[in-house]
Amino acid sequence: MSDGIKEACGLFGIYGNPQAVKHAYYSLYALQHRGEEGAGIAATDGRTIRDIRGMGQVSEALTLEDFGAFESHAAIGHVRYSTAGASDITNVQPIVVQYSRGEIAVAHNGNLVNARILRSKLESKGSIFRTSTDSEIILHLLASSCQVNWLDALANSLNEIKGAFSLVFLTPDEVVGVRDPQGFRPLIIGKLGDSYCLASETCALDLIGAEVLREVEPGEMVSLSKGSLASRRYAPPTRHARCIFELIYFARADSSLFGEHVHLFRERLGQKLAEEHAVDADVVIAVPHSATSAAIGYHQGSGIPFEQGFIANTYMGRTFIQPFQGQRTRYVNIKLNAVPQVLKGRKVVVVDDSIVRGTTTASKMRLLRKAGAKEIHLRITCPRLYHPCFYGVDFQSKEELIANKVPADNMTEFFEVDSIGFLSIDGLRSCARCEPEGFCTACFDGKYPVPVPINVRQMSFEESHGRMVSPLLRKAPAHGSEAAHNYAPR
Amino acid sequence: MSDGIKEACGLFGIYGNPQAVKHAYYSLYALQHRGEEGAGIAATDGRTIRDIRGMGQVSEALTLEDFGAFESHAAIGHVRYSTAGASDITNVQPIVVQYSRGEIAVAHNGNLVNARILRSKLESKGSIFRTSTDSEIILHLLASSCQVNWLDALANSLNEIKGAFSLVFLTPDEVVGVRDPQGFRPLIIGKLGDSYCLASETCALDLIGAEVLREVEPGEMVSLSKGSLASRRYAPPTRHARCIFELIYFARADSSLFGEHVHLFRERLGQKLAEEHAVDADVVIAVPHSATSAAIGYHQGSGIPFEQGFIANTYMGRTFIQPFQGQRTRYVNIKLNAVPQVLKGRKVVVVDDSIVRGTTTASKMRLLRKAGAKEIHLRITCPRLYHPCFYGVDFQSKEELIANKVPADNMTEFFEVDSIGFLSIDGLRSCARCEPEGFCTACFDGKYPVPVPINVRQMSFEESHGRMVSPLLRKAPAHGSEAAHNYAPR
Amino acid sequence: MSDGIKEACGLFGIYGNPQAVKHAYYSLYALQHRGEEGAGIAATDGRTIRDIRGMGQVSEALTLEDFGAFESHAAIGHVRYSTAGASDITNVQPIVVQYSRGEIAVAHNGNLVNARILRSKLESKGSIFRTSTDSEIILHLLASSCQVNWLDALANSLNEIKGAFSLVFLTPDEVVGVRDPQGFRPLIIGKLGDSYCLASETCALDLIGAEVLREVEPGEMVSLSKGSLASRRYAPPTRHARCIFELIYFARADSSLFGEHVHLFRERLGQKLAEEHAVDADVVIAVPHSATSAAIGYHQGSGIPFEQGFIANTYMGRTFIQPFQGQRTRYVNIKLNAVPQVLKGRKVVVVDDSIVRGTTTASKMRLLRKAGAKEIHLRITCPRLYHPCFYGVDFQSKEELIANKVPADNMTEFFEVDSIGFLSIDGLRSCARCEPEGFCTACFDGKYPVPVPINVRQMSFEESHGRMVSPLLRKAPAHGSEAAHNYAPR
Amino acid sequence: MSDGIKEACGLFGIYGNPQAVKHAYYSLYALQHRGEEGAGIAATDGRTIRDIRGMGQVSEALTLEDFGAFESHAAIGHVRYSTAGASDITNVQPIVVQYSRGEIAVAHNGNLVNARILRSKLESKGSIFRTSTDSEIILHLLASSCQVNWLDALANSLNEIKGAFSLVFLTPDEVVGVRDPQGFRPLIIGKLGDSYCLASETCALDLIGAEVLREVEPGEMVSLSKGSLASRRYAPPTRHARCIFELIYFARADSSLFGEHVHLFRERLGQKLAEEHAVDADVVIAVPHSATSAAIGYHQGSGIPFEQGFIANTYMGRTFIQPFQGQRTRYVNIKLNAVPQVLKGRKVVVVDDSIVRGTTTASKMRLLRKAGAKEIHLRITCPRLYHPCFYGVDFQSKEELIANKVPADNMTEFFEVDSIGFLSIDGLRSCARCEPEGFCTACFDGKYPVPVPINVRQMSFEESHGRMVSPLLRKAPAHGSEAAHNYAPR
Repeated sequence: MSDGIKEACGLFGIYGNPQAVKHAYYSLYALQHRGEEGAGIAATDGRTIRDIRGMGQVSEALTLEDFGAFESHAAIGHVRYSTAGASDITNVQPIVVQYSRGEIAVAHNGNLVNARILRSKLESKGSIFRTSTDSEIILHLLASSCQVNWLDALANSLNEIKGAFSLVFLTPDEVVGVRDPQGFRPLIIGKLGDSYCLASETCALDLIGAEVLREVEPGEMVSLSKGSLASRRYAPPTRHARCIFELIYFARADSSLFGEHVHLFRERLGQKLAEEHAVDADVVIAVPHSATSAAIGYHQGSGIPFEQGFIANTYMGRTFIQPFQGQRTRYVNIKLNAVPQVLKGRKVVVVDDSIVRGTTTASKMRLLRKAGAKEIHLRITCPRLYHPCFYGVDFQSKEELIANKVPADNMTEFFEVDSIGFLSIDGLRSCARCEPEGFCTACFDGKYPVPVPINVRQMSFEESHGRMVSPLLRKAPAHGSEAAHNYAPR
Repeated sequence: MSDGIKEACGLFGIYGNPQAVKHAYYSLYALQHRGEEGAGIAATDGRTIRDIRGMGQVSEALTLEDFGAFESHAAIGHVRYSTAGASDITNVQPIVVQYSRGEIAVAHNGNLVNARILRSKLESKGSIFRTSTDSEIILHLLASSCQVNWLDALANSLNEIKGAFSLVFLTPDEVVGVRDPQGFRPLIIGKLGDSYCLASETCALDLIGAEVLREVEPGEMVSLSKGSLASRRYAPPTRHARCIFELIYFARADSSLFGEHVHLFRERLGQKLAEEHAVDADVVIAVPHSATSAAIGYHQGSGIPFEQGFIANTYMGRTFIQPFQGQRTRYVNIKLNAVPQVLKGRKVVVVDDSIVRGTTTASKMRLLRKAGAKEIHLRITCPRLYHPCFYGVDFQSKEELIANKVPADNMTEFFEVDSIGFLSIDGLRSCARCEPEGFCTACFDGKYPVPVPINVRQMSFEESHGRMVSPLLRKAPAHGSEAAHNYAPR
Repeated sequence: MSDGIKEACGLFGIYGNPQAVKHAYYSLYALQHRGEEGAGIAATDGRTIRDIRGMGQVSEALTLEDFGAFESHAAIGHVRYSTAGASDITNVQPIVVQYSRGEIAVAHNGNLVNARILRSKLESKGSIFRTSTDSEIILHLLASSCQVNWLDALANSLNEIKGAFSLVFLTPDEVVGVRDPQGFRPLIIGKLGDSYCLASETCALDLIGAEVLREVEPGEMVSLSKGSLASRRYAPPTRHARCIFELIYFARADSSLFGEHVHLFRERLGQKLAEEHAVDADVVIAVPHSATSAAIGYHQGSGIPFEQGFIANTYMGRTFIQPFQGQRTRYVNIKLNAVPQVLKGRKVVVVDDSIVRGTTTASKMRLLRKAGAKEIHLRITCPRLYHPCFYGVDFQSKEELIANKVPADNMTEFFEVDSIGFLSIDGLRSCARCEPEGFCTACFDGKYPVPVPINVRQMSFEESHGRMVSPLLRKAPAHGSEAAHNYAPR
Repeated sequence: MSDGIKEACGLFGIYGNPQAVKHAYYSLYALQHRGEEGAGIAATDGRTIRDIRGMGQVSEALTLEDFGAFESHAAIGHVRYSTAGASDITNVQPIVVQYSRGEIAVAHNGNLVNARILRSKLESKGSIFRTSTDSEIILHLLASSCQVNWLDALANSLNEIKGAFSLVFLTPDEVVGVRDPQGFRPLIIGKLGDSYCLASETCALDLIGAEVLREVEPGEMVSLSKGSLASRRYAPPTRHARCIFELIYFARADSSLFGEHVHLFRERLGQKLAEEHAVDADVVIAVPHSATSAAIGYHQGSGIPFEQGFIANTYMGRTFIQPFQGQRTRYVNIKLNAVPQVLKGRKVVVVDDSIVRGTTTASKMRLLRKAGAKEIHLRITCPRLYHPCFYGVDFQSKEELIANKVPADNMTEFFEVDSIGFLSIDGLRSCARCEPEGFCTACFDGKYPVPVPINVRQMSFEESHGRMVSPLLRKAPAHGSEAAHNYAPR
């Protein structure tokens, strides 16, 4: 379980199924790990679009009764990870609007790098924004396009946005899925009976019993309508840059994406780690649940017995709202309990997926020591994180990344462990079976596959995630103050 | 209590008060009778705008804790009457958006007659709409204006919209109040200590202890900022057309608006009714609560003793959600109970404010008869309603108005009463102390003070209040179907 | 509206009706004014009893779906006024228990004067208590009785309790209604089709369309079962002592009880007041809503015009949870607004029903003065309150009653009014048409019709209403402390 | 994960800690797996007892704010598993009552075998019951005891009840913990700073940072008061009969109880299984999460690689309310997904903890086959279940146990697996390190350590868990019917 890394969003879409809404609900449930802060479903009966959206996990956010007797055959859904404050239901997706071509809904997974520039441009032409989502920018571009055919308009609009975007659109007539040219975020096509569907991960398709067909290709638009799946390339081929963190951490172990089965990929990470960072030890344990596959891999690679050194409270999900707010609780072990009976006097290899700010890693190491581990050998299934992500992974600013604060040589001391080993970039790539060069590894090596505007790079974490503010607002004559001289005071 | 007439919306605004949000909350509570379906408050700390909005009455819709530690000194608020379906939080106002000049919030009371035309025009230029409110149209016009000064832009925009509109705007720098050139809907200016405020009715100003200054004039914009009130005319003077129904029914009896004190105005209506439709009777009773003032007036004018023939359940408010949905309940008297001890064997004058569809009037007359009234003389404080309203009063279509279905001569028979008397238009006007000709009486005489486009007049009630649909959508090439040939099927 | 007087509870019962639960729900709604703090319904299908109970008003407290498919033909219900703290659902009635004769539910309106003694006695015999309600005491007595026939056992038990009690019982076989020998609290019998029902006030019977048959007599038990009503006297006749405050304040104006129609009785109170305390004035106004009938009576008796000097916010019910807790709000007029247009420069008679602690009366008088009244003549429809009530009216302790704090001569000064007039006890009695001597007037004259144990009289308000504590507990060796010497410390 | 076996309840108690309520809350959270249907906490400030109770999991059931400013230093808590219907808050524990010795609260884990007899006896003496819990019976016995000292009274009462009971009591003066003479259910003593505490499992003590002292002994009462722990034996020593299912399934893997560490015990079960039921296979997998430890044990014992063949949705907890009620959903894999990439073409050993009715086991085997397993070898860490449990484990009636329906020889066929192996009773016992003969194995061998009355044994599952009905009620003259002749009809 990585500290500081937050979930990506999750998408779903289906066309031509009388139980479209029900399938969307359950699929979002299967994608819950990609976003717990909000969820929404938009559905159509072929004439109009209705939506339900709410804050929190799927089971509390969505009340399907709100659709009443609405008979829909197509739907899209979204689970959201949000940095924004309290109860900001406004930003929960899908976003549904009306424009010259009628009604349309959209949901987005990823992060645009030119959002600020596009937004300023649109505002200066008279656009108004109700949300701070990238999705709304895309809809404005679509509405501004003078192409007669709406899919032409969409293709044009997609060529204006840069960065990471997997998108699902819903109109009364079809469901459209899109993936950015680099393929940062996943989007998979499935088939359920006669109807086609889309999901961020295969585990959602498995749950509803859909057959997995293939991934939407980077730079591809697919259109789902009655019994047919149509495809179109909207962008020329370019170097692929799949987000390696999807495989390392985000995705559920039973999903397949980017041509890899997540569990097997993580096992290979563990095996590779055992090769790169061998150690003499009594047991291998995992930080549950995300590192379990990798720990088994380390055990396979090293022959050191696999054990359960941590037991997780299965009632936590990934988050837990502590009921005593405003006080620092000392229940560090509410999620995890270390097992002295397994650890005491043992030399322990502990496998985790990543270290971001280092705080929760440090507290876990303390739990192990307190449980009596004789030696602790920390093994991480990815390289050191030096660079922030601008494509949708919620890494802290450069300054907060522990790799930039604690020199590599001092890390064992910092975490009070006996050794620490990070997988190498080459080692990481070598675990991929198909197109090992097609991944984005910018967070490790700083090589950003899509250029990031200098002002975006300079923005602090806070600014980049808060409510976006138009640059125009900062300089231009705005509301108020100087306006008063137009008035005759009374 | 009139059947079929629904409430108008209620507005509030205040600038320069550290308890702006609290005052907004209580003012909306005082304006609750103008709309029970939703409520919202937007506030600013001078830099950004935050809002809370919810469905239902103020006390359930708004949780002030949601503002947290947000330190605001200005706020606007809205209570809403909505014809739209279930939980349509999207349309609850104020609407907050970001555009080239920064953040802005708006709330609207009234109905535009050229909304469809404006919306189509805006959509064809690339605007997207998230709500079906007139407010969003106004914001799009404002955002499209190329005027440098935002109040000039606002003035221009206001000249494009036609119909009934009282508006309050909030920016980080000021609060602006607007009334349409005809003055259909009220908007009053108050002063609370050093700060200025705006409200639909004086009862809201009374509650928070504000002094009533004056009404916003028809065609006037007022701007509230730190310690000052600035005014500007954005439109040339025209004939005034204040909505007479505000005085007859909407407003709370203790409010003053359009230069009239509502309770005293209604007493005069009752006195005039006694003059125009005298009758020999034992008691005068009111249909509580809206007709109480008029019944006292009838008693004053006629000398017939005033009595309580109906007792209302004070727990009802104006609405009550029956917990047994889907079944016709026979509890006709859940709101009102007729008192046999007062009515039995008596000749009764019963005063009500209006008759729209006639169904609830009929059931009330049945209660009186069942309670033993010997004679029933129904007196209505306004003329017969023949014409629908396009300026914000939720009258049914022409076809549903009882005056168009039952000939005047057959009305006593229809309601099974001994006599029925409606106030004349001249009688109604004669009760106004200032500018008797400055009222809109279109619902009585069909003389619409602002021309209504023919297609709006033809729309049925349903269409005009449902989610507005762009005409373009109907004819133009839209999403889907024909688009498929751009795709190569796979 | 009296300050400091809280509502009594409300009861309902019905047998032999397939819509028993629905009728109970609506009846409780009609009795809402008798208790807003909690509500409950118990129902039977002839084999078992199920109940739903909740805090707050009926519409929020009770979710009828909780009965699911339970097919009941009999039910009892209760609305409760409670002095106890926060969310004390435990004390919400009906109370349902199982004992040797099977299941039984009971709901109680009134207050026993020997509750403490009985409870101590029962506890010393081994009874355990889950609530602090008198109802539970009654059930223990019933369970302890060795009478074979359960109605004999009930009769015996009723002879042990002293004070005010109207009761409804539900078993799988019948509904039983009981009234204490003095008849302090009302209980009315109605007939709805073939089924009989019981309610605290006739307004509940009116609402569900039941015919009013008669009151349960003081000292009578009635048993409702299939198509029949059986009666039995369980106590010898004694002097009646109906609570006069039921007529003055508690009951809804459209109810009839104790042989009086409430509205007409209150009109007579007003007429008598006009006789006893005549004054030269311009207008008579009421404090809404409870004093409206009396104000009309004063107008009838005096010939002074009746007017609306106060306008009430119809959204208040009798209570309103202020959303800003912990701060003294200055919105004194949130419930009532005084109307300057009616009051300014006028000599005003203002009629209210009672003065308890005097605080809210004082604030209302301030509203009148602020609205410009030239003279204020306060008229109260009952005598001065000197003595606390031990039979269920929530009067403050003797010390808090304003009549004991401000000498009669200084009252006009205290309230800053020009004159003040209280109805005399004889005047009050003279308004009753049947059995004027059959009322309890202890709060005025200190003549308690049922002796009150000295320790109960000495208890402060707090103690008498908090969680009841067994006297044994205070003196006897109880849990803990001294018990430790039985233990060998380890 | 066993089908049909429901959780036992969980207990907690603490004395002498200013954060007693907070510790109770978190401890219940750690014990959540023992009961998800309801939760409650009772606390004392030394004078009175207050409680909060609710339906569902701890985080939804309990709102600590409800304690307000109540300053408590002692508390007990309970999580509950209930078979009863909908919203039966009445039965949620702790149960708080008042009796002759003052206030007392109790919470119970286990099941009494003589509950019906005791209850009938108590009812015939006049006791009334509000719940169907065994706890209330114990309180009645306590209240009926004529012993002066309350702990003597408690000791006497405990000798009257038979069956499984771990109990925690709270009075204003102390917390008392009790375990039945056979020691069926666990109860552990911990120390947190100066204060002592009690919990069903050590994982609760670990979470709040308490040191584990020892178990409450079978037949022991311990009393926690200020800084001291006192002990007393209330019953003579007898054969111990700890519930072996606590170790096999109920307890969290990181708990220690009955002298065993759960995870290590389960590993030994797996090792023993590997010995008793060896097989040639490619991988060992667990049914998550309860069988993970045993699967690792099987891997250790057999040398067959351990793998993740099932991936669980971590958002499920142990239950999930399906939002589409009334329809059979086909999402069999909502909790578990089988991983074809791990299973395809492999010979698989799958380890589960038990088979009760067999239905969920069958569906899991289908998932494995569908994922492509070449051979499936099912291994169960306990013997076949032939006999119902009367001590608190919610086994189905004898008729529903799959072992009684499908002959041992046909089981592989029934589950469509290649082999099936159950651990032997001797093998099971051999895994216990201390007192292997001190377990109850009645569900396997029918040897009930505490005699079960014949009528209890005959009761169907439904009857024994529904609302308990007094036998007296069935035969004795009860409410109603025959009572009517006491009445003179009117």
